[in-house]
Order: sequence, then structure tokens, then C-alpha cells
Amino acid sequence: MLVVMRTDATAANVDAVCDAIRALGFTPVPMPGEQRTAVGLIGNDGQVDGSHIGGMAGVAQVINVTKPYKQVSREWKPDNTIVTIAPGVSFGGGELVVMAGPCSVESEVQILTAARAVRAAGASALRGGAYKPRSSPYAFQGLGTKGLQLLALARRETGLPIVTEAMDDAGAHEVAEVADMIQIGARNMQNYSLLRTVGKIGKPVLLKRGMSATITDLLLSAEYILAEGNPHVVLCERGLRGFDTATHNIFDLTAIPVVQRASHLPIVADPSHGTGVRALVPPMARAAVAAGADGILVEVHPTPERARSDGAQSLYPEQFTDLMRELRTIADAIGRTVAPAPGTTAAVAG
Amino acid sequence: MLVVMRTDATAANVDAVCDAIRALGFTPVPMPGEQRTAVGLIGNDGQVDGSHIGGMAGVAQVINVTKPYKQVSREWKPDNTIVTIAPGVSFGGGELVVMAGPCSVESEVQILTAARAVRAAGASALRGGAYKPRSSPYAFQGLGTKGLQLLALARRETGLPIVTEAMDDAGAHEVAEVADMIQIGARNMQNYSLLRTVGKIGKPVLLKRGMSATITDLLLSAEYILAEGNPHVVLCERGLRGFDTATHNIFDLTAIPVVQRASHLPIVADPSHGTGVRALVPPMARAAVAAGADGILVEVHPTPERARSDGAQSLYPEQFTDLMRELRTIADAIGRTVAPAPGTTAAVAG
Amino acid sequence: MLVVMRTDATAANVDAVCDAIRALGFTPVPMPGEQRTAVGLIGNDGQVDGSHIGGMAGVAQVINVTKPYKQVSREWKPDNTIVTIAPGVSFGGGELVVMAGPCSVESEVQILTAARAVRAAGASALRGGAYKPRSSPYAFQGLGTKGLQLLALARRETGLPIVTEAMDDAGAHEVAEVADMIQIGARNMQNYSLLRTVGKIGKPVLLKRGMSATITDLLLSAEYILAEGNPHVVLCERGLRGFDTATHNIFDLTAIPVVQRASHLPIVADPSHGTGVRALVPPMARAAVAAGADGILVEVHPTPERARSDGAQSLYPEQFTDLMRELRTIADAIGRTVAPAPGTTAAVAG
Amino acid sequence: MLVVMRTDATAANVDAVCDAIRALGFTPVPMPGEQRTAVGLIGNDGQVDGSHIGGMAGVAQVINVTKPYKQVSREWKPDNTIVTIAPGVSFGGGELVVMAGPCSVESEVQILTAARAVRAAGASALRGGAYKPRSSPYAFQGLGTKGLQLLALARRETGLPIVTEAMDDAGAHEVAEVADMIQIGARNMQNYSLLRTVGKIGKPVLLKRGMSATITDLLLSAEYILAEGNPHVVLCERGLRGFDTATHNIFDLTAIPVVQRASHLPIVADPSHGTGVRALVPPMARAAVAAGADGILVEVHPTPERARSDGAQSLYPEQFTDLMRELRTIADAIGRTVAPAPGTTAAVAG
Repeated sequence: MLVVMRTDATAANVDAVCDAIRALGFTPVPMPGEQRTAVGLIGNDGQVDGSHIGGMAGVAQVINVTKPYKQVSREWKPDNTIVTIAPGVSFGGGELVVMAGPCSVESEVQILTAARAVRAAGASALRGGAYKPRSSPYAFQGLGTKGLQLLALARRETGLPIVTEAMDDAGAHEVAEVADMIQIGARNMQNYSLLRTVGKIGKPVLLKRGMSATITDLLLSAEYILAEGNPHVVLCERGLRGFDTATHNIFDLTAIPVVQRASHLPIVADPSHGTGVRALVPPMARAAVAAGADGILVEVHPTPERARSDGAQSLYPEQFTDLMRELRTIADAIGRTVAPAPGTTAAVAG
Repeated sequence: MLVVMRTDATAANVDAVCDAIRALGFTPVPMPGEQRTAVGLIGNDGQVDGSHIGGMAGVAQVINVTKPYKQVSREWKPDNTIVTIAPGVSFGGGELVVMAGPCSVESEVQILTAARAVRAAGASALRGGAYKPRSSPYAFQGLGTKGLQLLALARRETGLPIVTEAMDDAGAHEVAEVADMIQIGARNMQNYSLLRTVGKIGKPVLLKRGMSATITDLLLSAEYILAEGNPHVVLCERGLRGFDTATHNIFDLTAIPVVQRASHLPIVADPSHGTGVRALVPPMARAAVAAGADGILVEVHPTPERARSDGAQSLYPEQFTDLMRELRTIADAIGRTVAPAPGTTAAVAG
Repeated sequence: MLVVMRTDATAANVDAVCDAIRALGFTPVPMPGEQRTAVGLIGNDGQVDGSHIGGMAGVAQVINVTKPYKQVSREWKPDNTIVTIAPGVSFGGGELVVMAGPCSVESEVQILTAARAVRAAGASALRGGAYKPRSSPYAFQGLGTKGLQLLALARRETGLPIVTEAMDDAGAHEVAEVADMIQIGARNMQNYSLLRTVGKIGKPVLLKRGMSATITDLLLSAEYILAEGNPHVVLCERGLRGFDTATHNIFDLTAIPVVQRASHLPIVADPSHGTGVRALVPPMARAAVAAGADGILVEVHPTPERARSDGAQSLYPEQFTDLMRELRTIADAIGRTVAPAPGTTAAVAG
Repeated sequence: MLVVMRTDATAANVDAVCDAIRALGFTPVPMPGEQRTAVGLIGNDGQVDGSHIGGMAGVAQVINVTKPYKQVSREWKPDNTIVTIAPGVSFGGGELVVMAGPCSVESEVQILTAARAVRAAGASALRGGAYKPRSSPYAFQGLGTKGLQLLALARRETGLPIVTEAMDDAGAHEVAEVADMIQIGARNMQNYSLLRTVGKIGKPVLLKRGMSATITDLLLSAEYILAEGNPHVVLCERGLRGFDTATHNIFDLTAIPVVQRASHLPIVADPSHGTGVRALVPPMARAAVAAGADGILVEVHPTPERARSDGAQSLYPEQFTDLMRELRTIADAIGRTVAPAPGTTAAVAG
């Protein structure tokens, strides 16, 4: 059960609700959000009769939620959430957002070349890692602060908003100074401390599905962010751990319609990590759009064969240009459009 | 190594090649096909120098194949195989074949209603099980012979070719009398005896991927059929065993471009078994087409809520009609077309 | 619901029960067994009140079974089933049965050497394949009939009962003439036609778990055999399809206590296929015994480095001798004993 | 390639080695440890000839490591690492360490009752969570600081060393003040920031395998800790994400011998999380010991039916006492012993 307080509820109203919940034998969990506070109940609340709470001062609504996740569910909020990361760049509406760029920021020349190329092809956001989680401590871990500065430069040069990953609490604050959207990687999907931190920071979050996470796990991780008062969450399918070495992962595109039925949050797909093989990226990007994804995250590198990470799955700029053309056609076939690069119009980008 | 004999090679030519292989210390495996015979080598043939065999009488070609599968590989045959199951109904070319119908044949009324509905919506083949592999011995196992007769009736009434499953050697011969395409189900993908049998029968085969089969496993199973001289094999992705109960399976659409790079055989997708949930079938059917599938196998039932099997994943006829419209648009977006129902023209069906 | 008939029930009694079931609106499924007939109900029988059937002539018992599997469940039969394949060689009691031998029968010398070696070390049954299911049609498929003859010879020479695989309906009848226990391999676990055939043959069956089968799937496959009147079924855990190439499979030893709680059938483990790596076989064989396995199936080859199949996972005879010593100690620690080779006594074998 | 510096190497020696590596065209990565510094090479170092570096001042050794992990490998250090968490409580030698206690610290009475019970039964360490990673933000998250104080109290009362989890960088420092061994949970196995932090803290670490981590992934995560100069790492198998709902996870005991061949680090098993079902814990704990585990981590609660987390998989104290007796017998059968509770002797504990 969740008790949603009115936006004008006072602290005393919230306290009274907490007392009422305690009187029922449960522990109240006040969850202050930007707009309003909700009060949750810890424990198996299936049999609780909370109808009298609905009539208390400052209470907007009492919700019995049948899923383990609450605020992210469509039961809680039937309408799609629209997450806006820059003027004209929004997830969850009719337009698809294409985020493209290299796995890692490697140098000023590399990131500017990549940013200009993906913008020219029609991407509406730039992806690129300054902090890289790598399986090996000896692998290239990203340029760190320098990488963030280069991303900020690329934004100034191209107008593209920035999507980049944060790996820990301290890093999240640093990343938040530059990023328009903070990415939480698959390995950190259940790093609850980090989820709470980006929840508190309040900037848009791109939350990638862990490599053996169920949809319920993914939505519960998103719930951690919303529980801190940050509703600006976009989910991302990026492939599951699989048994077939023909691909790097099993790209579970069915997650897209499953999430869209269960939650009001937008969901995008990452065919680069989802497949791990360059030649498989275009068909699977098309498939993701056809399945209803709200956007695509794709690795593009000016010179993939010299990339310091993920070269084998990065597209050449000209391949990305071709892919953008295909994605516009598929989007059109299902009654959607690919968002234009910021500051342009769809006609120009098309 | 495979030695491909010329179509005019004599039995003596083949014998001579076998002797030459024995002289190299290997066991020859003659594989007579409809058109020509190939002779394979058993064992680790990586270091064999078979160049002199290329010059022997009746030899067309000596092929060093780097994959564990041979005849199904693109190395062996670079051009797409076209599998035709009825006049105008071909897999592997520009047209997509939509096969639709109920999981099981249940009655004359049911199968005729279903057949007419899917034909009206534009399907070009009728699927329906007379023999059903069921996890429980106490579940409905299909109408058997009676079901095959009803399928034959439905073909006479609608002109739709029939795709139906065979479960064992004896059944394969019976099914072959009615079916235009014999389906081998996921559970029997490595029933090598059955694979050899349908290889010998020679009719087109729809081979479904096992629920934890790698692409290599799938292609090796197809190789069993080709090794018996039957090249008319269409592969089918139908979902992998997964850990998330939100769907029945993990629908691995990446298998489509992976197979198309590795093999010349057509590949279709089954979004009904791939997802197990009716509402997920249309988006995932669209995704399969966008990923490049050569066709779709989809369950449609006149009254899914009363179906004796797979009701929860069967589309209502009107949903299927809507889906066909969407598939035509997606196919168009990637430069393909959905095959019209046999005996009609695309313009009429569209 | 299952209606168990008395052993002296007449055909008329069974017919009357079938009529009573039809009167309830269900389809009766008579399941004649060796000893007695049971009549099952098809369909969702949860709400049926069948109490009046319990009073009909010839009816021993009416059972409401809560699991999808029926006759294999502990609800149906609380006591352990004991499966005896030769005098003194029984599964499911206090003694553990060790079945050992090569993957494939390759020659008279090979199989006799192997049989003598495993008998000397204390095995109580000989395993060896005459018909081998291989992923590739070009791999060694076993010696077939000749292999069966050599197994019969090995039994005459050593007294060890024979466990060997059948791959199809015709083969099952041939195998049954020689085998003391017919093995159904993992790839055929859901080959229902084959399951019915070995159910009808009536000889003991070793049913291996499929590589992505749930325990419920496995028990339902066993149910197919019992439904034909053959209760002599031993289950076998042999590893699941996994994502880590460090081992060939994920060896799911927890299946042992899970099966023992759910079913009265014995269960053994195959650490050779379960791991795929020779050095991992001894620790995992020990673990299987400690987990409560009713026996072990292990590959031993006189010269593994020259084996025609599974050489990398086959033990050397001296390793097997050491392993037998360890297994006796572990068995002793949990209050069980390793069965002696037939015709010897435990003291001699120890 | 790793260049291991002598313990008396100067900063100038390290700089010179770094220069030499740069001269080869690679980037040097100095890794200062507590005792000595190592210098790694970034990049594909397969073809580098670093023999001249071996002769430089301050260099102890130049190692060519063939695995992606380096310092954790047996190639790097052939002898078992012994990790000691309290006097007489060591992992990796002949004695097995049993760590037992509740999932969460819930109250003073609960943790003291649990601690005394597991000590009386013979456990040699107390486990219990003060900070709990929970899938839902609304589930009980542990008592935090208060929980750590209660664990410290339990240690004073029973003499048992404490194993408890840290979830983030700040928490790791707080946990380190109380814990004798810091646990990193499965969800944080690839939280590289946290791994580095516990590497720097230097206390013994219990690193649990992620639920879809390969053995290589697990060892690479351990490498992060060793790369910070902390060699006191014990690995833990706790079950993989599986498809069968009969158990909570697939308990991959083969990981034990696989790790022991690849690495010198100790490895223990957690049959409570590995199975998720109380009745399955004793057989699988026995199996883990038989497979060669260096210890067992097991959940024991005074009143599991009232536990705030993991009640269904927690043993009753009397069950744990029985289990300890069985584990001693199995350990004895393979030539090992179960470590006695600290301050007792094996004879008394036995």
C-alpha cells in the first residue's frame, strides 16, 4: 500500500499518516519526492484495510499495488512518463531518440569527429564513456575527468546532449555536472547505493538492465530511483548472458513490450552491446524500433579498428548514416518518427 | 573436407574417390543427394592435402569447410536457398511467407474457420497440429490421423498449403502424405533418427530451434537433413529457455541475421511460442520482420479462450488481420513484400 | 485425478469407470499397467468431485494429485521405488550403483579391457554406447549392432549388467535384446514416441535430464514411461546448458534432493557429461554421492587420448580405481554403501 | 606481462621500469601494493619481449601471464593462499571454516541467541547482515550501524569472528571497523569502485560470485582487490540465475574445483542462497565439502519462521547441529577437518 500525499500536504499531515500506519502494526516509510510525498508500508500489506487513511487530511490517494514495484508501475501512473534531457530531446512520446557515439572518449579529435558524424547522420544525443567499468583492472578505464571535459566540449560544438556513465557515488556527482543523462551500467543495476545517489541528484537517468535481471528486477531498481523523488528514468535493454558464443549476449527485445505494459517509464535498446558484432547491429536496431523501443543507444566510432574498447561492435560513421535512414523508414511504418538532432528540424535531418 | 561429385559422375567415380580418401587414412562417407553425390571425410581433416582428389574423374569440387557444419554453410553454397512449398509460396527470396492457424486441429468447424480467416487476412500457408508433443502424457495430444484429414480438407477449401508437425519415424511418413511442409518441433531438434527420416522423405522441412540449442547445433541438425539429400529446409527461431517468467521463452531474434550470415537456408520466426503471451505477439512479429526474417509462423484461433492448447498465445482473427497490415508496412520499409495468399495477387491481398 | 483400479478389476469395471468420468464431462484415459490399470482424467480436473467413483466396483483408490506429474510423484507412491537391473544391482535402496565404461564401444579389445578394469575397481554395471547421438552427422555414430554384440560379450566375460542407449523406436527394440537398462539420452528426453516405446518394452530405463529441462519436465517425461505400465525408471542428472565455457555444462546436483522430495524414483548423476573435463570428474562424483545420489554414471576408457568420443572427460582406469575408493568413504560417511560388483561381496570389492 | 618489483625497490626503480615499458610502446600501470609494487602493461602484450626488464634494478620478476586475470592465477602464485580472519580461523589450508548465522541482524536477543547456537554446534565464524541489499527499496534493509554494534557485541560474547556485508564505499569503511571479513555480495561483484575500496582497506574479503558471472569474471573481480595490494580474498559460490523455479538458483558446485585449478585463492560455498530451500541446504552443504570447498557459509536463525529476510532458507539451530556432525564426517572422508570454534579444540568441538 502506498499513501500519496497532496502537493499541499503539511509535515504534520504526513506525520499523522505515519502514525495511522503504525497503529495498523506496520512501519511507515515516508518517501519525499520533488512534487509530493508518498508514504509506503513495509511488510506484507496484502490484508491491510487502509480505507480510513484515504480520508485523512493531506491524503491524495491510497493505492493498493499488486506488484513488488510500486511507483514505476502502470497501476500507479497509467500515462507514459516523458523524460526530457534537452530541449526537443524527449523519451516516451511519439519521437524516437537515437543516442550514438563511441564506447569511450579517447581524445579531443576522436570525440569531436564522432559527435559531428553522428549529428550529421541525425542522432539527437551523444553517448561516450569517461568512466568505463571493465572486467579487468588492467584494461583501459576511461579518461575520467578529462573525458567529461571533452564531452562538454563536444556538446558546445554540436549542441548534442550528453549521455555518460557514472560508476560510484562520488563519480555520480562529478558526472552530473556534465551529463544531460547519467547512465547506470548493467553491472551496477543492483548497486543500490548508486541508485539512491542518482535518485537524489535528480537528473535524468538511463538505467541499463543487468545481464541476468528479470524485468521485475529492472523495475525494482528503477523504483529505488523514483523512491528518492527522481521520476526521470529511462530503461535500457542491452542483452542477457547467454550460452551461445555466436553473439556476445542474448538481445531480449521482448523486454520492450513487456516493460511498456508493466510500467509508464520509457525503454530504449542498445543493439551494440545486445549483439556484440558490428554486422548484427543494423538489423537488430531495426527490430528494436519495430518492437516499439522509445530510442536506440548505438556505438559509432570514427575508426572502430583502432578503438580502445568495443571496436568490434562499433559502427563506421557511414554505416550509421545508412542505419538512420532505415530507422526513419521503420519508425514511419509504425506511426512514429525519429527525433531530429537538436536545433534542426525533422525535414532537415531527414 | 567434402568432395562434391559432378551430376554425371558414375558409381565407379565415387568408389575411386572413396578409395583415395581411405588411402589418406580417413573413412569416406558418401552422401548421395537428389542431384549429385558428395563424399565427406570423417575425422579431424584439417591437415589433409586433398588437392590430388580434385583432379579425379567425376569430381566437381573439393571444399575445405572451416565450420563443423558443411552443406548448410555459406562457404559451401553462397546463394540463398529458395524453398518452395506450393506454387507461389517460397521462402528465402524477396517475399515473406506468413504461416498462420491454430496450435492444434480440434474439429472441422474450427480448422475451416481458422483457415478461411487467416487466408482472408492474407496468410499464405496454414499451420495446425494433428500430432502434438505435450510435456504431460495426459494432455491433449492432437487428433492424429483425423487431424491430418481435416488439414487436407482445409487445403481443398482454401488453397493454403499445410505445415504440420511429425513426431516420429512412422508419423513422418503419414504426415508427409498430407503436409506441404513437415514441421520438426523444438523438442525433436536433436532427434537424429527423425531428422534422417525427413531427409529421406525429401519434402520441405520446417526445423525449429531447440530451446537451448546454439546456432551451430541448429545448423548441424539441418545438416542431418541435407546429408540425406534433402535441401528443402527452413529454420525457425521460436524462443529459448529463459529465467524470467514474464515471458514463456527468450525470443532470440538475433538468430535471424546470425543464421543468414552463416547459412544459405531461409529462417523464419515464431512469435507465438517465442513470447507465449498474446499481447506480445504483434510487436515481436514486427520485430522479426524488421530483423530480416523470411517468414512468420503465428498461432491464430477462432476462439482462443476455448483452445485446447496454446490459447493464451493465440491471436484472435481480427488481431491477425491488423498484424498482417503492419507486417506489410514493415516489409515495405526494408524493401521486401509479404507473399500474397496462393491464387491471389499481392494487390488483392494487400 | 487418477482412478487406480484393483489388480482383479475386470474390463467391465474399467469401462464403467470411464463412463462415470465421461458423465462428469471429462475424457477418460485408461492406462493399463503390468499389475493394474489406472484411469486418468484429461483436462483441468481441479474442481471435479470424484468421490462417488471411489465406491465403484474394481476401484482401489481415487487420487487427487496436485502436481502436473502423477504416477511418478511421492503423493502417488510414498515409498522409494527400487529398480533392479541384475541380481544384486538395484537403484533406490541403501546401495549406490556405479556404472562405468567408455562413451562408445569401439572394438572387442577396447570394451573387454574397459569392462575388466571397471569391474576390478568395483563398478557394478558397464556403460557403453553402440548407438551414439552426435551433433554432427559426420561424427562417429557408434558401431550399432556390432557394438551391442560386443556389449553382450563383455557381460558374459565379466558378469556386469549392460547400460546402453537407444535412439529411436526401432533401435529400442534391438537394444532391449541386449541391454539390462535402456538409456534415453538428454537430447531425446522429450522424444515422447521413444518414451512410450521403452514404456511398452518394460525393461529398466535410465532417463537423462535434457539440457534445459526443469525437474518438472524431467518427471513428466518419466510419467510417459510409467503411463505405459513400466515403473522401472531411474533418472539421471547430467548437466545443464550453461554460459561459462570453463565447463561443458552446469552440473545441477541440487536436482538430486529436489527429485528425491518430489518423486519416489531413484536418481543418479553423470559427472563426466556434467563437467566435460577429466580432472573435474572425481570431485563432482564425490559431491554427487554426498548430495544423496543413488548411483554414478562415469566414463572410463583404457586409453582416453585415443577415444573416438568424449576422450577429454573419460577417466583413466587407475583414476577410476582411486575414485571408487573415495566414493566408498563418502558413502560410508552418509550411511550408505557402494554396491559391490555382481557376484562378489562388498568385503572383496572393498 | 607483469613486472613485480622487489620490496626494497625505490620509486626511481619503478619509474625506470615504467620508462622501459613506454619505450616498448605500451602504457605502464604501476600497482603499488602493501608489500611491493607491480607494474602491468596495458594492451595486447602477447608479443612483447620484456626479457631485458628482468635485469633492471629493483625488479624481482617478470611474468608472462596467459589468462586475463594475473595475480590471482596459479601461474602467478602456485601455492594456496591462506586467508586468516582470526587466530585459528584460516581458509585455504586443511581445515574447513563454517560461517553461520542469520541473514540479517534483527535484535540483540536474536543475534546473541544465533551466535551462541552456531558456536555451540561448532561454527568458527558468525555471519549476519547489518546492511542488506534488497531488490525492493521498501524491503527491510538491515539495522545499519546498530547492527554492526550488535555484531561486535556477539563477538565479545562468543569469540566468533564476524563476516558481514558492505554495500558501498562509505559503508565499507564503517563495516571494516567491526568485521573480521568484509563480504561483497553477488550483486556488487562487478562494483569495481567498491572492489578497489576493500582492496585499499586491506582486511580479508569474502567475494561472492555474481549470479551470471563466469569463473573468469569472478577471478577478474578478485584481481581488482589484489591489484590494490590486498591478497586476503576468499571466493564464494552462491548459485547462478536459473530457469527452474524448483530452486532459487542453480548451485554450481563445479566452480569449486574449477577455481582451485585456476587460482590460489580459497573458495567456499553458500548452500543457503545456492538453493533457497531449507530442506536442500544439508545435502548441498555436504556436497560442497565433498567437492573440496574450503568452507561453508550457511544461514541459521533461532526462529526462521519469524525471520525478516531469507526465513525459508534458514536452518533451525538443531538442524545446523546435525549438519555440522555430517560435515565433519564428510571432511574426514576426504582427509580434511572442520575447523573448531575459536578458543576450543577440535576434540571438544567434535
